[in-house]
Amino acid sequence: MEKERETLQAWKERVGQELDRVVAFWLEHSHDQEHGGFFTCLGRDGQVYDDLKYVWLQGRQVWMYCHLYRRLERFRRPELLDAARAGGEFLLHSARVAPPAKKCAFVLTRDGRPVKVQRTIFSECFYTMAMNELWRVTGEARYQSEAVEMMDQIIHWVREDPSGLGRPQLPGAPATESMAVPMMLLNLVDQLGEEDEELAGKYAELGDWCAQRVLQHVQRDGQAVLEHVSEDGEELSGCLGRHQNPGHALEAGWFLLRHTHRRGDPVLRAHIIDKFLLLPFRSGWDPEHGGLFSFQDADGLCPTQLEWAMKLWWPHSEAMIAFLMGYSDGGDPTLLHVFYQVAEYTFRQFRDPEYGEWFGYLNREGKVALTIKGGPFKGCFHVPRCLAMCEEMLSALLSRPALAPARPVPDPARRGAE
Amino acid sequence: MEKERETLQAWKERVGQELDRVVAFWLEHSHDQEHGGFFTCLGRDGQVYDDLKYVWLQGRQVWMYCHLYRRLERFRRPELLDAARAGGEFLLHSARVAPPAKKCAFVLTRDGRPVKVQRTIFSECFYTMAMNELWRVTGEARYQSEAVEMMDQIIHWVREDPSGLGRPQLPGAPATESMAVPMMLLNLVDQLGEEDEELAGKYAELGDWCAQRVLQHVQRDGQAVLEHVSEDGEELSGCLGRHQNPGHALEAGWFLLRHTHRRGDPVLRAHIIDKFLLLPFRSGWDPEHGGLFSFQDADGLCPTQLEWAMKLWWPHSEAMIAFLMGYSDGGDPTLLHVFYQVAEYTFRQFRDPEYGEWFGYLNREGKVALTIKGGPFKGCFHVPRCLAMCEEMLSALLSRPALAPARPVPDPARRGAE
Repeated sequence: MEKERETLQAWKERVGQELDRVVAFWLEHSHDQEHGGFFTCLGRDGQVYDDLKYVWLQGRQVWMYCHLYRRLERFRRPELLDAARAGGEFLLHSARVAPPAKKCAFVLTRDGRPVKVQRTIFSECFYTMAMNELWRVTGEARYQSEAVEMMDQIIHWVREDPSGLGRPQLPGAPATESMAVPMMLLNLVDQLGEEDEELAGKYAELGDWCAQRVLQHVQRDGQAVLEHVSEDGEELSGCLGRHQNPGHALEAGWFLLRHTHRRGDPVLRAHIIDKFLLLPFRSGWDPEHGGLFSFQDADGLCPTQLEWAMKLWWPHSEAMIAFLMGYSDGGDPTLLHVFYQVAEYTFRQFRDPEYGEWFGYLNREGKVALTIKGGPFKGCFHVPRCLAMCEEMLSALLSRPALAPARPVPDPARRGAE
Repeated sequence: MEKERETLQAWKERVGQELDRVVAFWLEHSHDQEHGGFFTCLGRDGQVYDDLKYVWLQGRQVWMYCHLYRRLERFRRPELLDAARAGGEFLLHSARVAPPAKKCAFVLTRDGRPVKVQRTIFSECFYTMAMNELWRVTGEARYQSEAVEMMDQIIHWVREDPSGLGRPQLPGAPATESMAVPMMLLNLVDQLGEEDEELAGKYAELGDWCAQRVLQHVQRDGQAVLEHVSEDGEELSGCLGRHQNPGHALEAGWFLLRHTHRRGDPVLRAHIIDKFLLLPFRSGWDPEHGGLFSFQDADGLCPTQLEWAMKLWWPHSEAMIAFLMGYSDGGDPTLLHVFYQVAEYTFRQFRDPEYGEWFGYLNREGKVALTIKGGPFKGCFHVPRCLAMCEEMLSALLSRPALAPARPVPDPARRGAE
């Protein structure tokens, strides 16, 4: 046990130091002092190679800075709060394409003019996360009312009427559910309900509905998590139906663990560990070169996505969170050993000891394929969220008298709400 | 010279045999006997892994079968004509989303119901190519009137009013021109004008306009071909402005060579060889592993496209056509040697001696990354078009008394029209 404690302690220090380096990278290179918000198209050394502002990444960075400010003492620094506020104001001012309508752009010019709009809910989801965290750190009610109003709009699009998203209804397009939608909504339920009994109550039924919808993606007698299923939870035909995204399944896994922890359902918890953690890890881990594949076909056919075998930063970040949370919550050493395996690979392959932050895109063999540190889809989010959550979980584990817990231990990300 | 003739003869045989194998693959695996049209999602051995029908690829395969039937004696076989007709009827019946409006779907179900619509002109362009070739081989006027009516609609979208395409006008989105648009239109002008003086005359001004627009993509004092420029031909800011696609530049190169050949402008011809053939080849050829990069950044920064360094089948097919056409038309041995270099790499890396057709997607090092032979973007088109055109050009070269031509020699793809 002492050996195990030493290993956990070493990882806690490694993770904490890496978090400092990662945050320093974004603080140094990403702030737009003129217009507010963040540059996320950053080269290996932090150089801005494009000044477009992707709304997902603006919202995520606001959320991340507030989250760090609120939860880790050493990040309670004015520069994080000021940048988060400036990012929030930028979003308030520019994210919506045609106010008072709530639809947000996908990407904006540096000064906030819309460039592209996606016909999905995700820009709005990250907007909501940003506003809710800003309210938590500033106490300003206007941020929270923005968050709640946008949340209600998102729920309307998802559960009542998607027509406001602008997607055409075509006779050949089956009514499908992407796992991303209930997953993201489950994450928002957790975000808004933290230490807020009123909203936790308001969204409790929604949380259960989301969990139920995510669970529908376990298909083929429990042998596969499929990214897209029919509206009534059946497998779809063709590539779309067979599409698997191991990183997404693992992320859904820890969202579900967090949800289940509140519900206190050990049978469901075991199901989640089995289907959303171990299954995607076992099928998604490259036996030849290590690392998680980006996409797979449930029949073992070749996916059509060009990057299917590339190793991306975010599935590895999500896997670290999922396995450490699974271990923290139940004490199964198998889960801890998978955490170590993923974390060793991830730190070895993705870190950049020279300039900080992680590389995002490796080829199948683990060589850096793109040297960028940020881009249209990679910002200040998955890496620091992973490191901050792992640091908190490792601290909590080390603070216990014995490492194998006698009863489930609260997930640190919900600590305040227990 | 005798040595050179032997090498050309050997390539002619290699190319001709490969064309036979490639066509055999599609004849055996791709025909939908029930609904007409073609399966293009084919695994390494030809197995259908998805039955969706991508309209670009339906149109291209109809065009390809007709073109082979019409131009190469050994392909004048009923099975090609019947399959092309069935594909054409499938398109006539199903491609348009809401007839009589002309907008075509991007992808259809196997039985022809629309699944997705793109807000671009390309489905319609391949529809037009298919209909025009069908008319050429069958003589049925209804195919030609479809082709001409669709062509006029496309011209209206490009030169008069794009609103029918359904793209939103957003204040932050600059008015840009993608090189694909005038390129594609130039190709259609050539297609419709072949051996058709009336249409050649009708579209002559359009052809000049397209060439002029494509030439505007040569930027930075002639040092780069940029994929996107502003409406008035200036470089755009950011990644979009710096984006380069060597395969596209090479394809535009041979479209322009064909156009210039008709116009008989040797200065322009030299410019095209320099800027659209040699420049993209020199900057786009991977000095380390060989092969053409998919995308590059004009400042030498890392592109944000995950596949930027992958080697794709179609840029190599286009490069083979471009360099052999450039050589055929002017006799510069440099161009012939580049043709050999590209063709050697291409035959070595992309061919599949076991099952036929070429692999489409290699990693940077040249290893097969996706084993599929067809998919949403790869069908029966670039490979057989390249092989058929190269076979014809090699035959024409070998039929000359001396290999270095005293005067420009007609492009074989325009042979009948000269």
